[in-house]
Formats: sequence, C-alpha cells, structure tokens
Amino acid sequence: MNTERATSIIMLISCPDQRGIVAAVTAFIAKYNGNIIHLVQHVDLTANVFFMRAEWEEQGFNLPRGEIGNAFRSIAENFQMQWELRFSDHTPRMAVFVSKEPHCLYDVFSRVQSGEWNVQVPVIVSNHPDLAPVAQAFGTDFKVFPITPDTKAEQEQREVELLKQNRVDFVVLARYMQIVSDSFVKQYPNRIINIHHSFLPAFAGAKPYHSAYARGVKIIGATSHYVTTELDTGPIIEQDIIRVSHRDSLDDFVRRGKDLEKIVLARAIWWHLQSRILVYNNKTVLFE
Amino acid sequence: MNTERATSIIMLISCPDQRGIVAAVTAFIAKYNGNIIHLVQHVDLTANVFFMRAEWEEQGFNLPRGEIGNAFRSIAENFQMQWELRFSDHTPRMAVFVSKEPHCLYDVFSRVQSGEWNVQVPVIVSNHPDLAPVAQAFGTDFKVFPITPDTKAEQEQREVELLKQNRVDFVVLARYMQIVSDSFVKQYPNRIINIHHSFLPAFAGAKPYHSAYARGVKIIGATSHYVTTELDTGPIIEQDIIRVSHRDSLDDFVRRGKDLEKIVLARAIWWHLQSRILVYNNKTVLFE
Amino acid sequence: MNTERATSIIMLISCPDQRGIVAAVTAFIAKYNGNIIHLVQHVDLTANVFFMRAEWEEQGFNLPRGEIGNAFRSIAENFQMQWELRFSDHTPRMAVFVSKEPHCLYDVFSRVQSGEWNVQVPVIVSNHPDLAPVAQAFGTDFKVFPITPDTKAEQEQREVELLKQNRVDFVVLARYMQIVSDSFVKQYPNRIINIHHSFLPAFAGAKPYHSAYARGVKIIGATSHYVTTELDTGPIIEQDIIRVSHRDSLDDFVRRGKDLEKIVLARAIWWHLQSRILVYNNKTVLFE
Amino acid sequence: MNTERATSIIMLISCPDQRGIVAAVTAFIAKYNGNIIHLVQHVDLTANVFFMRAEWEEQGFNLPRGEIGNAFRSIAENFQMQWELRFSDHTPRMAVFVSKEPHCLYDVFSRVQSGEWNVQVPVIVSNHPDLAPVAQAFGTDFKVFPITPDTKAEQEQREVELLKQNRVDFVVLARYMQIVSDSFVKQYPNRIINIHHSFLPAFAGAKPYHSAYARGVKIIGATSHYVTTELDTGPIIEQDIIRVSHRDSLDDFVRRGKDLEKIVLARAIWWHLQSRILVYNNKTVLFE
Repeated sequence: MNTERATSIIMLISCPDQRGIVAAVTAFIAKYNGNIIHLVQHVDLTANVFFMRAEWEEQGFNLPRGEIGNAFRSIAENFQMQWELRFSDHTPRMAVFVSKEPHCLYDVFSRVQSGEWNVQVPVIVSNHPDLAPVAQAFGTDFKVFPITPDTKAEQEQREVELLKQNRVDFVVLARYMQIVSDSFVKQYPNRIINIHHSFLPAFAGAKPYHSAYARGVKIIGATSHYVTTELDTGPIIEQDIIRVSHRDSLDDFVRRGKDLEKIVLARAIWWHLQSRILVYNNKTVLFE
Repeated sequence: MNTERATSIIMLISCPDQRGIVAAVTAFIAKYNGNIIHLVQHVDLTANVFFMRAEWEEQGFNLPRGEIGNAFRSIAENFQMQWELRFSDHTPRMAVFVSKEPHCLYDVFSRVQSGEWNVQVPVIVSNHPDLAPVAQAFGTDFKVFPITPDTKAEQEQREVELLKQNRVDFVVLARYMQIVSDSFVKQYPNRIINIHHSFLPAFAGAKPYHSAYARGVKIIGATSHYVTTELDTGPIIEQDIIRVSHRDSLDDFVRRGKDLEKIVLARAIWWHLQSRILVYNNKTVLFE
Repeated sequence: MNTERATSIIMLISCPDQRGIVAAVTAFIAKYNGNIIHLVQHVDLTANVFFMRAEWEEQGFNLPRGEIGNAFRSIAENFQMQWELRFSDHTPRMAVFVSKEPHCLYDVFSRVQSGEWNVQVPVIVSNHPDLAPVAQAFGTDFKVFPITPDTKAEQEQREVELLKQNRVDFVVLARYMQIVSDSFVKQYPNRIINIHHSFLPAFAGAKPYHSAYARGVKIIGATSHYVTTELDTGPIIEQDIIRVSHRDSLDDFVRRGKDLEKIVLARAIWWHLQSRILVYNNKTVLFE
Repeated sequence: MNTERATSIIMLISCPDQRGIVAAVTAFIAKYNGNIIHLVQHVDLTANVFFMRAEWEEQGFNLPRGEIGNAFRSIAENFQMQWELRFSDHTPRMAVFVSKEPHCLYDVFSRVQSGEWNVQVPVIVSNHPDLAPVAQAFGTDFKVFPITPDTKAEQEQREVELLKQNRVDFVVLARYMQIVSDSFVKQYPNRIINIHHSFLPAFAGAKPYHSAYARGVKIIGATSHYVTTELDTGPIIEQDIIRVSHRDSLDDFVRRGKDLEKIVLARAIWWHLQSRILVYNNKTVLFE
C-alpha cells in the first residue's frame, strides 16, 4: 500500500448529541474550501453522545495547520466537544513489548518492514532475553528489563524513560506476559494495545486456552483492547474466533490460536494507526 | 423490535463527487430545525461518485412532507443529484415467489408474523401448487401460475397484473426456480431480491451445490442480489458462507445450505426494508 | 433429505484407552458380515479415554437386533465399555418448551414439517399462553403450565407426567425462560437441549445481550448445550457467532442474535437426532 | 509445540469400498501389538471409494520399519489398496517459491524458525531478486531464476535440478507469480502447494482482487490447493474468507486479503506436514 496519497486532515469529535453538529462542522470545512473524503457520524442513543470522524484533503484547504485549532475553537465550545486533530503524513512511533512467544512479533515486523504500515518502531522491550535474535534479524533495538515483584516498579520506571527518550506515541503488548501497573497505564491512556488470547470477557486472566479446553468450548477467540488499570477489561478494539472440536488438543488450541492472536492484534494496530478509533464509556467506536 | 419509534425522514443521494455536498445537505436539514439521527457518506474514489444516506426526525422538522421536495430541488440540481425521499412510517408491500422448497418461505413468514419486519405480504406466487399448505398455515393468499416455455410470457403478464392490483412495492424470489424474463424485471428495477445458493460469481446458474460438491470446495455460500436481466449477475446485497468437508455428502451440502440461504435472504430483505441500499455500477452501497 | 436410506445399526462406545479396541469391535462387526459405512474413533490423551462411533448396514448383518447385545457383551466387559446401540429407523419423540419468543419455535417446526428431521413432536409446553397461535398453525398440542416460585415444583411434576405420557425421548428448550429444577434435569440426563444467547462461558445467566452491549464486544454468540443441574454450564454441543459493531444498538443485538440462536439450536438437535454426540467430563465428542 | 512426542507410524489407504477393510487393517496392527492413537475412515458413497488414515505408536510395535511393507502386502493386495507408510520422526524438506510479495514468505519463516513446524527449508527460489533481503534475514539460500517466455523451459529445468540436489520433498508457491509448466508439475504430483487469492472457483487466473472489486462481492477469499497441469483447478486443501463492504477500496481488498492468504497457505502446509491429506478425483480428504 505504498501508493502515494495526498495529505489529509482528520478530526475526531465526541460531544453531547444535539441539533446541528454535522452542519456546523461541515460548514466550517466548506468555508475554507476543504474537500471531505470521508465522513462518518454516529450517535449512541443510549448515552446520548455524538461521535464524528471527518477527513478532508489538505490541498486546497485555506487554513494552515497551525491555525485550524483557533478557527475551530468557537464551534467546539458551542457544542462542548472533545476533539482531536491529526494529519495523515504523521508517522507514529510504536514500541513493542514481548516475552517469549515470537509469533506476534514476527507478524508485526513483517508488516513494518514490507511497508504495509506507516509506523516507526524504535525499540522492542522484553522481560526475557529469548527473542533477542528475532529483534536482531529485523534490525531493531531490543532492551531487556527482567521483572520480579521487588523490581517491578523500578523497571517500569526505566521502561517509561526509554519510551519517552524514543518519543514513543503508543505501545503494543505483543504477548507480553506481565501485567503493567496503573502508573504505567496512566502514562499512555488509550495508547497501549494488548492482545488477549480469548474472546473476552470469557477466560480473562491467565491460561485462557487451558480454561477453554477444560470447558469444552466449540469456538476459541482472541481480543485486542486498550489497556486500562483493570486487567483484561479495557475497551475492545477487535475480536475474532475460529471453530475447534473435540479433535483439537490443548496444543492445537495454542497453535491455532496464535494465528488468531497475530491477525486480531494487527487489525487493532491498523485502526489505531489510521486514527479511526474513538473511546468512550470503556467501549470503542471504530470508524471503518 | 416492536418498540414505538418516532417517525423519521430518510434521504438517499448519489451524485458526482465535489466539494460541499455534505455541508449543503446538512445545512438544509438544520435550516428547518431537523435533528439528524443517522448520517453516512461514502465516496467511490474509483468512480468519483458521492453517496449519502441521511435520516432525521420528522418531529420538530419545520417542513411538511409535501414541501420537502420543492425546498430541496435547487440543492439537488446544483449537485446533479439522484435522490429519493422515504418515511419510516411507510409499510412496504412485498410479494413472495416460491417453487417447491419451503425453508425460505417459512423463514420469511416467521419474521413477518412475529413483527420482526415492518412489511405487508398480500400474496404468495408460485409455479407449483406444493407449498399451498404453508401459505394457508400463515393465512396468506397463494396463487399458482404454472409455467411452460409456451405460457411463460402470458403467465408473467398475469403475475404483474396481480402485483399491481396488490400495490406491491418489491418482490422476493424465495427459491423461485424460474428465470424471470426481462420484461418482468424492468417492471421492478432494483425491486426484485433473489437468493442464489452459491457464493457468486462461483457456481452461477443451475445446481450450484452439485457443482460445488464436484469441485471439492471447502466452503459453500449463498448470495442475495437484485435481479437484473442477466442471470445471477445483479448487484450483490449480502453473502455468507459455511465450512464443509469431505465428510459432507451432497445431501449435507443441500441441507446445510438451506440455513445459509434463508439467513442471507432475510438480511437482504431487512436492509431493503430499512432503505439502506443504494445501487450503482451494478454494486450496492449498504448503509449499515 | 427424504431420500430412502437403508437401515443402519449405530454403536456408541467409551472406555479407558488400551490396545486393540478398534480391532475387537471391527472384528465383531466383520464376524457377522456387517458392512461399516461410518467409523470414527477418538482418544482423549489427557483423560486417557477412548471414544468410538461405528455405523454399519443392517442388511446383510447376520445377527437379529435382539441378539446383538448378548453377542457383544463379552467384548464390552473386557474393555470396560459404556456403550449404546441405536437403529436409524427409530423416530425419536421430542418435546419443545417455549416462553414468549417465537423464532426458535418457528424454525424447529419449519424443519419438522418439511421433513428435514426424522422426529415427532407430540407436544409443545410453555409457561405462557402467548405462542398458542403458532402451535395451532403447526397443528401441534400446546400445554400451558404457568410457573410461580410457589407452584414450580408441582407444575414441573405435571410436565414430567405429560412427557412420560407422550413417551418423549428428549426435550428442547427453545428460548424457555424458566430455569428447570434439578429433579426435572435428572429425569432426562443429556436429553435436554438448551439454547443460550451468548458464547458461553461469557454472559451466562440472565440478559446476556444487555451485558454484551454494555461490555462493548465486537462479536456476539449463541450456545446450545445439554442442561445440567448447574445453570448454563452443561456440555456444549455447538456455538456460533456474528460480528457486531458500535453501529448495532441493543435492539440490533437482540434481533440479529435470534438468527444465531435458531441456527445453533437446530444444529444441536440435528446431531442429537443422528446419535452423533457422546458426553463425558462435561464435554461433548461430536462425531461429524 | 516442541513437546517431545513418541514416534508414530502412519498409514494412508484408499481402495474400492467393501466389507472388512477396517477389521483387516486394525487386526494387522493389533497382531504386532500396535497401539492406535488415531484412526479415521471415510467412504465416498458416490464414488464407492474407501479412505483410511491409521496412526499407531512405534514403541511396542513388534515389526521393524523395514518389514512392515512385506507383512502388510497380502492385505493390501486383497483389497486392491493404494497405500503409503510414513513415520512421524521424518523431517520433510520444503522449497519455497516467491516473486515480489513478501507476506507469505515472512509468515512461513516465522513458523519454521519458531519451531511450529517440523520441516527444513534448504532453499528459496524466485523469479525476481526483490525478496533476497528477507531470505537473508532468515539465513536461507535464495536463488533467482529470471523467467521470460524464451527461457522458461530451461530455467525450470535448472530449478528442478536445484530441488533434486537439495532432496526437496515438496514445493510451496508462496505468491509465486509464474505459472509452472506441466513438466515441472509432473515431477511433484500432489507435492506442490499453491495459494490463490480468491475463493476458487470464483476469480481463477490473474488479478482476482480486481475482479472481485469490480463484481461488488461482499466476501473475499483465499484458496490453497495442490497444483495440477490445469491452472487454478487442482485439489483444494483449504479455503477461508473475510467480509468486505463498499467501504473497502481495491487497496483494502489487497491488504486485507494478504492476511487470509498467509493463514490459508499455512494451514495447508500444516496438514501436508502431518500426512493428513489424501487426494482422489481431484479432491482432498483431509483427516483432521
């Protein structure tokens, strides 16, 4: 997907629902001669919240980047909007955390190296040295922070420093088998993507394949979600499943599940990179 | 689904893409104090065509139904729009055509009778008498038009008269095993929904399960589409599949495929009833 | 599938795994000139349990039905087998329990009436009168047993008597919204099939769609299982899912879930009718 | 998946169906004290062909490998069997052919390197130099054979020599964009696995995503199959699909399809490595 694309401006909005929001926003874009290439709006009728993603071409838009905020402010205040502005030519910086399982790491890097994603990965972090050769094959820095209950707080502190030094925008836990602490999570709200190897909320916590096997399910799944301070309960970005049968052993669950995990994680990263996810009420609005 | 819902006004638009369309339409709605509850816009970048579905509450909108068209005309002409106006309190009238297989007929009527769909079915048409008892169980008129090559034109003429008498808005071919002629199709453009028992374009034409079985596929499918004058090539509305294996006999393909057919057909009817389908270039835009 | 099929003899076996079981059973069948048309064997390596389903033609088999048990006894004892013998020309008798939602009832009867299943349904039982018209349309007895906490034990007693009078082989809870008591369950061990409207073990208990909606899942499911004395934890027979999005309201979850429920329930009934399910350790072995 | 497993003996059989086959084979295994760990039998009632896969532990089996063939011969001749014998401790040698798209190559090697598969890959072959860096990262020989209509026969000849030198057991076409000639195919009957980026038989040949996009399908797929002398019509091993919508551009089809392709190809390779595929009548029996 390395086709040359013109730069676009993306606005993500959420606010209490009321009359005239779409008209006000699109009139603003039209006023400065913007050409909308993608607009989706959604109203959560239960919560009475309005969501919108608008994307328009920068070329021909008569406002420089630095002045859009000021020009839009009165509309935003009028509708009590929470809003963000992004630009499609920005290349985000992503850190990848791993432990011992390599399949998600391989998959992430096959996409990074082949140019499928517009992203930079300055560093891979792990609590174990095992995957250093994979990192080396992909030519990326690999930092090991062994973690014990005693050292956890200190090591996480060092991890955060490393991320700051590397100007990391968001973090991917690619089968990282440590629970990240609240203070770490709060540094990257809705910026840490985890992959859990079950269809949540079933089988949260440790060893979900073992539990699924013991329960005798006919379907196993995987869930990518933003990490919050409560384990495996953050906003779900994407889920998928495969069918299993009595013929599948626990080893088969684990082996077949890996394919799910890497695909479901990759889809979540893709949507995040596209600025297509809005979070509210611990759910995601995913502007496909 | 029988929850009391306020009436809404639905506008479906397609036109050449250019700047300012969304702004113009939403400003129109806002001008008369309309509250948008659903707006989706789509641009086909290949064909350079703009599509939009807007739905707003009738309550509070300061234009009577009969005057909306006049008021909107200048905008429509300005953007060379093709557009339609619908009202959510309209109950469409649907005719169902069947032959000998009853599963889709049962399924359609279970939805009609239980109130899942807002639709009226004044008449069932068949080229065979076999399913008369099913129609009777559901208390619906059942008309038989036996068809031979010699009588086809005349019988279809009588069928169209029956549909006109019954003020039928659209037709569902629920495993109707006759090819409808061009002149019939032209009476109901994008108003005849067929269910074909394969994932088109694979296995178009007769006996798709036999062909799928002979080919040794690992997946079978079903496709609902609008009928055009060329067999099994109309705009696809919905498709779905199930996995099969060497353990499945041809009888299993047929039996298991029935479940697919009825579900895929029902989804297409649902979208049609919701005025959520736009057709262009022999494709559908499906405003979910 | 009303194709005329020759009668076959079906044997379901489970026993501790050891050498020579398949050889012993197939030699037995061969000794009396039986022609095996389907044989599946499975070993649960974790539990060290052997499972087998053998099906052979009755025609040409040199043992009358009444003598098979005696002739097989020594093999069965030698391997400590639990085993059952069934004949494909037996038409099981099924009772259907419903409450207010009709979609599963419609679906079950569309299959019964069209001859898709080889089964008899002597009676429909409900705790509400609402679905009497559906039962009437299908020409089947409909008995109402209103249930309150005070009358539950007594009413269930009467239900069991009704089932016994009707020589019911197994019971289908087709969205029956009462928890059946332990004493009822024990009358029909692995003979009561329930449909639960979630992918168990997620969202067990009441209002699973509400919980799924609140959690923001991207997939909803349905689970058919044999009923045990603990709620929603019996052996799972079949599960399936559909994708949902933020665009789906709670009403959409409920509406779209109905299609899942009826299909997943129908698959479970099909396998049960085919004598293709073995239960052990609260799991099912499903001999497809 | 690196759990230490005891060696097992695998027998694949096909023959005209008749009485007593299973009994004869299992009696043979029992005679030499073999412990069956997996047995599946299948009869194609249309073609009247019997298929069987039996797997038993080598430990305790009282026949050395070299004598099994002789001992089994009379049974095989009696039933006119085609049969093969394999041993689970054999590590097959696989060649991978690629062109310019790297996603399947990355995926294959992530599995090889992480030990998910028991396979050796002595060489990667390509008609373009582009993917040399990927091969290098994985430390595998990469040979380029540029192909023009004039050089094709000669280059293929050299490729076959390379494969012979490397004692290659089977070939994987991992998005290799050249049609392999009949003479090449005949060197490796049912030993060349291709991945085609559509759900065959739909969209055979070149540019399937373009055709799918033009047709307006709601589902796209991928198919892995053994290569035969006729393009895209060989025995299908595995297929899978994903849903698409009008929101997906052709680029989205291509991008999202890649995930399908690599997973579907990997499943086919897995079954092949497990000796679980039997081919007949241009179909596969897949002993899961």
